[in-house]
Amino acid sequence: MASGKELCEGVEWRIRVVDGSSEVLVPPTGLARKVWLRTKGLISGLGMKVRMFLKQAWDMGANDPRKVIHCIKVGLALTIVSLVYFMRPLYDGVGGNAMWAIMTVVVVFEPTVGATLYKCLNRVCATCLAGFLAVGVHWIASQSGDRFEPFVVGASIFILASIATFSRFIPSVKSMFDYGAMIFILTFSIVAISGYRVDKLFDLAHQRISTIIIGTSLCILVIMLVCPIWSGQELHSLTVRNMDKLSDSLDGCVRLYFTNSNGEDDQKLQGYKCVLSSKASEESMANFARWEPSHGRFNFRHPWKQYLKIGASMRSCAYCIEALNSCINSENQAAESIKKHLSTSCLKVSSSSSSAIKELAESVKKMNKSPTIDLLVEEMNSALEELHNDLKSLSHLLNPSTTAENQISATGLVPFMEIIPVVTLASILIEISVRIEALVGSVEELVKESEMKDKIVAKEEKPEEP
Amino acid sequence: MASGKELCEGVEWRIRVVDGSSEVLVPPTGLARKVWLRTKGLISGLGMKVRMFLKQAWDMGANDPRKVIHCIKVGLALTIVSLVYFMRPLYDGVGGNAMWAIMTVVVVFEPTVGATLYKCLNRVCATCLAGFLAVGVHWIASQSGDRFEPFVVGASIFILASIATFSRFIPSVKSMFDYGAMIFILTFSIVAISGYRVDKLFDLAHQRISTIIIGTSLCILVIMLVCPIWSGQELHSLTVRNMDKLSDSLDGCVRLYFTNSNGEDDQKLQGYKCVLSSKASEESMANFARWEPSHGRFNFRHPWKQYLKIGASMRSCAYCIEALNSCINSENQAAESIKKHLSTSCLKVSSSSSSAIKELAESVKKMNKSPTIDLLVEEMNSALEELHNDLKSLSHLLNPSTTAENQISATGLVPFMEIIPVVTLASILIEISVRIEALVGSVEELVKESEMKDKIVAKEEKPEEP
Repeated sequence: MASGKELCEGVEWRIRVVDGSSEVLVPPTGLARKVWLRTKGLISGLGMKVRMFLKQAWDMGANDPRKVIHCIKVGLALTIVSLVYFMRPLYDGVGGNAMWAIMTVVVVFEPTVGATLYKCLNRVCATCLAGFLAVGVHWIASQSGDRFEPFVVGASIFILASIATFSRFIPSVKSMFDYGAMIFILTFSIVAISGYRVDKLFDLAHQRISTIIIGTSLCILVIMLVCPIWSGQELHSLTVRNMDKLSDSLDGCVRLYFTNSNGEDDQKLQGYKCVLSSKASEESMANFARWEPSHGRFNFRHPWKQYLKIGASMRSCAYCIEALNSCINSENQAAESIKKHLSTSCLKVSSSSSSAIKELAESVKKMNKSPTIDLLVEEMNSALEELHNDLKSLSHLLNPSTTAENQISATGLVPFMEIIPVVTLASILIEISVRIEALVGSVEELVKESEMKDKIVAKEEKPEEP
Repeated sequence: MASGKELCEGVEWRIRVVDGSSEVLVPPTGLARKVWLRTKGLISGLGMKVRMFLKQAWDMGANDPRKVIHCIKVGLALTIVSLVYFMRPLYDGVGGNAMWAIMTVVVVFEPTVGATLYKCLNRVCATCLAGFLAVGVHWIASQSGDRFEPFVVGASIFILASIATFSRFIPSVKSMFDYGAMIFILTFSIVAISGYRVDKLFDLAHQRISTIIIGTSLCILVIMLVCPIWSGQELHSLTVRNMDKLSDSLDGCVRLYFTNSNGEDDQKLQGYKCVLSSKASEESMANFARWEPSHGRFNFRHPWKQYLKIGASMRSCAYCIEALNSCINSENQAAESIKKHLSTSCLKVSSSSSSAIKELAESVKKMNKSPTIDLLVEEMNSALEELHNDLKSLSHLLNPSTTAENQISATGLVPFMEIIPVVTLASILIEISVRIEALVGSVEELVKESEMKDKIVAKEEKPEEP
């Protein structure tokens, strides 16, 4: 805005008057006007930003109504827990410590069931453990006399807090008990220290634990009863969706290259990028899914880790599609005759590969071994065989002497450089199909493991039959 | 363990006695013994696991002593804040709410300065804002009569908690104020609800804010004075380290392919995988670095976002190295003569590319434009030119008729299929060099922007010179 204004002041505005001469238009340059202009600019800029922000928020809510539902659930849980405050008997029961229940709800309520359960269980266990330990430490401290008491308590806090903090760095602890370690430090410090001041230590520990249990049970009820979002189900859908995207991208890229059709949807072509960037969310979902009870078609102890392997296989395909894309956008364009020569077999490979991936997605979706996947892989392999043969016969089209360039048009032969992009594309396609076979393997493993778990669960449910 | 025991019981142990015959050794099979064996197995298994876990923890501490220092810092901060409890005047000053200070220290203390500052500032601002709002809501509620008071408070909690939770989904809010939004809900609920019970509402709000300020200032002091770890510095080092890894991988892979040397360090070859997987940590570090004050050579408002662009460029190179790796491990091996024909130029391209990346790493490290980078890029381009020429002349080595396979050895000509892997490798190398040029661009932009920021800061420090 400022630079525009300065420019405006540098230019002279003239107006032609009736008699033919012109008069200079002098803009009012008072300080008040400057301030007004700047303020107006600021306000309109701010208004624009706020409007953009609200639009973004609205779109987000409209695209994923579950986010809105989550917000309402949080509000609901908090309002219910407030009842503890308004109802005299409940309030007196927890000795005025109802605040802890509110705090628990705010802190443990997460969008998915798994994440909430993880936090709830960690919070309850860590609070109990730390509470007992703190009472023990307090007893030891009280035995050591008034003078040493602060030192014993201080030293125990220092040592336990350091150890618990260190444990949060260890990957296996971090993935399961990161939140628990923090709550452990928190509860231990508060209870151990309060022991020095509050005489009714047991009461404090008991109240803290009971308010936390009120809070966590309420959270678990609300999260599981009101439109629950399961981490496991999310991970499952993400995997299926990513497979579909991978398949569309692969087919779309190759088709775009050979048919030059502009009809391909750009969003579809770029779908593989979602696969590249979904590692972190897959890992966190698999982590939370472990805490979830049996839901929908998923048992407790469903092989969630296998989804991470499938994700890794998908990413390794996506890396190749990225390389494929670079061939397509390469400056070094291939000769049309070569493209034509290889197009049939390349398109066959890409369409059979992509339908194999589609079939895998279907197989994961239904969680059973696909009856046609072997057939599709065979089809892919025969298409590969065809591509191999086409590549072999390519040498006939080559012009052995690159110096005699004027020969080319006469004989229809192509200089070697112009076949490189197509050959690269073909060999990346071959590599992709190798990686798809690995993907087939990991999907089959998932289906097998999940069937095995189903059987174990069925066996546990009716253990003996005469 | 159990399956081993069963196996053991299935086998018959015999002992040869002096007279030549053998006697069956019957193992004692009492219940007590079985229980003893199983318990022993369990204990030794558990002992083994614990030992492994401790070893892992020890190694982690030994590899990165800063983690140990962080743990000691947490212990230190907690012990200091406990003094508030032991010192009567301080304790009385915050009306027995010293617990909040401990809680603040446990919750906001993060390994890096940036993350701690982010949490501290969010916590303080959100607490103040929510405290004022809650007092306002409480005033309105108290005006509406005893009967409606709970409804007004409940509705305000429901609405504000829902809105604040929703805002946490919006990316721009999430990256800057995620923690603040949670603390806002927490403080607002607690203060608004307590207003219904605690008469001295202002005292509660005041005590909560002052204890939080005690806790956060202590955290900021400890984190910045005792061996500080800066997110920005970490991001900077990670970028430099990743570039070095990328360069080593690229050079190593191509060298391994052409020279078949087994001397290559496998860890070096796989270094590019670190680049592929460091997106999430780069993003969180860049996010936290924004909160850090000027430190070392980095000013406040150093262009941290540019590091993300460099990271993206590096990843796009790493995708190609992944594809390159697949050529190397491909079953379809190339003919030796072709390899030999292209090896000189390919090695030249890879070594010049990798020294260009090394130089970029150096340039980022020193944060100034490298004087030799243009030369190195030129060198890389001339190596590419050479590779182009070698590829062109490759057609001479080709055997135009693949049917006459017995001719090959006689004429030294190679079937077309055997050149495909090398050609693919070469064309991926060409693509990598294109992407390296993009990397050069983003590094130059970083250096330029950082120099610009330096100038602005210098200007602000001594604004006018006569």
